[in-house]
Amino acid sequence: MGPHPAVAAIRLAVRRVLHDVLNDHRAHHDPHETATPPLVLVACSGGADSMALASALAFEAPKLGVRAGGITVDHNLQAGSGTRAAEVVARMTALGLTPAEAVSVTVGRAGGPEAAARDARYAALDGAAQRHQAAAILLGHTRDDQAETVLLGLARGSGTRSLSGMAAVSGAAGRYRRPFLQLDRQTARKACMVQSLPVWDDPHNADPAYTRSRLRQEGLPALEKALGKGVVEALARTAQLSRDDADALDHWAAEADRSVRDDTGRLECAKLYALPPAVRRRVLRKAVIEVGSPAGSLFARHIEEVDRLITGWRGQGVINLPGRVEAQRQGGRLVIRQG
Amino acid sequence: MGPHPAVAAIRLAVRRVLHDVLNDHRAHHDPHETATPPLVLVACSGGADSMALASALAFEAPKLGVRAGGITVDHNLQAGSGTRAAEVVARMTALGLTPAEAVSVTVGRAGGPEAAARDARYAALDGAAQRHQAAAILLGHTRDDQAETVLLGLARGSGTRSLSGMAAVSGAAGRYRRPFLQLDRQTARKACMVQSLPVWDDPHNADPAYTRSRLRQEGLPALEKALGKGVVEALARTAQLSRDDADALDHWAAEADRSVRDDTGRLECAKLYALPPAVRRRVLRKAVIEVGSPAGSLFARHIEEVDRLITGWRGQGVINLPGRVEAQRQGGRLVIRQG
Repeated sequence: MGPHPAVAAIRLAVRRVLHDVLNDHRAHHDPHETATPPLVLVACSGGADSMALASALAFEAPKLGVRAGGITVDHNLQAGSGTRAAEVVARMTALGLTPAEAVSVTVGRAGGPEAAARDARYAALDGAAQRHQAAAILLGHTRDDQAETVLLGLARGSGTRSLSGMAAVSGAAGRYRRPFLQLDRQTARKACMVQSLPVWDDPHNADPAYTRSRLRQEGLPALEKALGKGVVEALARTAQLSRDDADALDHWAAEADRSVRDDTGRLECAKLYALPPAVRRRVLRKAVIEVGSPAGSLFARHIEEVDRLITGWRGQGVINLPGRVEAQRQGGRLVIRQG
Repeated sequence: MGPHPAVAAIRLAVRRVLHDVLNDHRAHHDPHETATPPLVLVACSGGADSMALASALAFEAPKLGVRAGGITVDHNLQAGSGTRAAEVVARMTALGLTPAEAVSVTVGRAGGPEAAARDARYAALDGAAQRHQAAAILLGHTRDDQAETVLLGLARGSGTRSLSGMAAVSGAAGRYRRPFLQLDRQTARKACMVQSLPVWDDPHNADPAYTRSRLRQEGLPALEKALGKGVVEALARTAQLSRDDADALDHWAAEADRSVRDDTGRLECAKLYALPPAVRRRVLRKAVIEVGSPAGSLFARHIEEVDRLITGWRGQGVINLPGRVEAQRQGGRLVIRQG
């Protein structure tokens, strides 16, 4: 008798990613060297998603000649978080993961509590990957997390890129992999249950102070009630399609950027005018960021105002943009500089 | 003392669109002819949005030398709908709209109740426009309607085009115009109130049997609670950005389509392979539709399967697509035909 379908599903997802990691690893290492087997780490909070991931990694890695380890990040945001982290290490060790370690971080304030915690977490994981020379770090984000991320992007209203959610492969040299991005949260939870794995429900996940928690507890269920059960899947598919569209348009914009400049590298308004609006606005956005405007403070309405120097020219003056960047039209050229 | 801000807002929105209609009209008519002034019709259900629109059209049109009329469509779906339509005609007449008429339609079943009602409505409006030689028909869709349309598109999960909502200008020769697409529903409602215009609340709008009603009554409010009050605006902005992106990518795909065919017009797999995925999938989708697959039945997963003939070739057989269309790879060419 084979494993429970939920366990089979999480193992298959991990096996596929390990194959990809191995292929990439072989492509970058001389086969004639006495190679140590590559190490793959799982980032594990102790929650159901990442515990399921840890269990599947521990099961699949040895069969493929891959070493498997685990890292848990202690964010030091709750009393007793150190004890909690030690418990997660013990559980990872019990699964056979080596190394199995906790990394303690200090969460700053930049960008709000969720962004600050995320920044600290990834910095710690990057550090662990380097320290252990890991080939990859697996993250337990599920299709449900992806759906939430798309809705969070939708709320920013900043277009196709912001709807593209999380990538299956990301980070420097494709370090981060998300095997569960097509798998629903319920499957991960079920896989833990049937394997009798203890899981920890992070109280943050239900705390209405966090936007993502409100979305998970109320927003998405209400949307499913109105639009039907397929919403999570539709959002995840939107992420993939939007990512491909955004990539193609960025590629086009990078090519267009070279064709709209004069001999001295300045942007020519007439040539910009001839581009499709979606491409032109990407060229403008990149140009504004390049001279020092912070991407995170630069909104669609800023770029629209710059765009009107091209499409609605009626002698406007200097346009002020975030990061003390100024844009103006001079003699048929668009001049963008930091003031 | 000027008008109430809500009234000023609806009038400004209509004035801008009337200017556009006049410019288009002048561009297409010989100024030396004794031209009758153009006629602009409002499609009016008697609800707050379209009553506000009707009032603004009646106020602005004479000042610009435009004739203003109104059409109400009797869908014959509720008892007393004929009386209701006659009331709306009387209200339009009271506003000074000429012609002011009701058009009675029979709603079919194709595509579900909402789609069938919409098809019947637009057919009636098209007919009225032709009969009266109208230069344009104004529709009362607000920013809130746009937000709902984006969410409905999101639920389909079919990508950027389906997120682009309703266009400000649409239909044959740009017949339909939506002056209120940037205006919120509350402003239209307020404008009716301060002008003492009686409005009719269509019970369909609150009927949970309709997806859009559920979205309006429960889905969007829950999303606003989770994500903040800016959600409607963000969704409307997403519509505009997605529309521009989808237009640019369709344009690219049309150009790419010409470059990936051999001398006999067949699609070459190697050339398709070199395209960005977002562009390649649009080329494939168009090719499949052209030989007879109905666009509405063709989903992302169908195109992904065809795409794997290009990107994941391992000797697959014929792929069956909606509308008895078959796709297969033969000698480095993609053969798509109706079986």
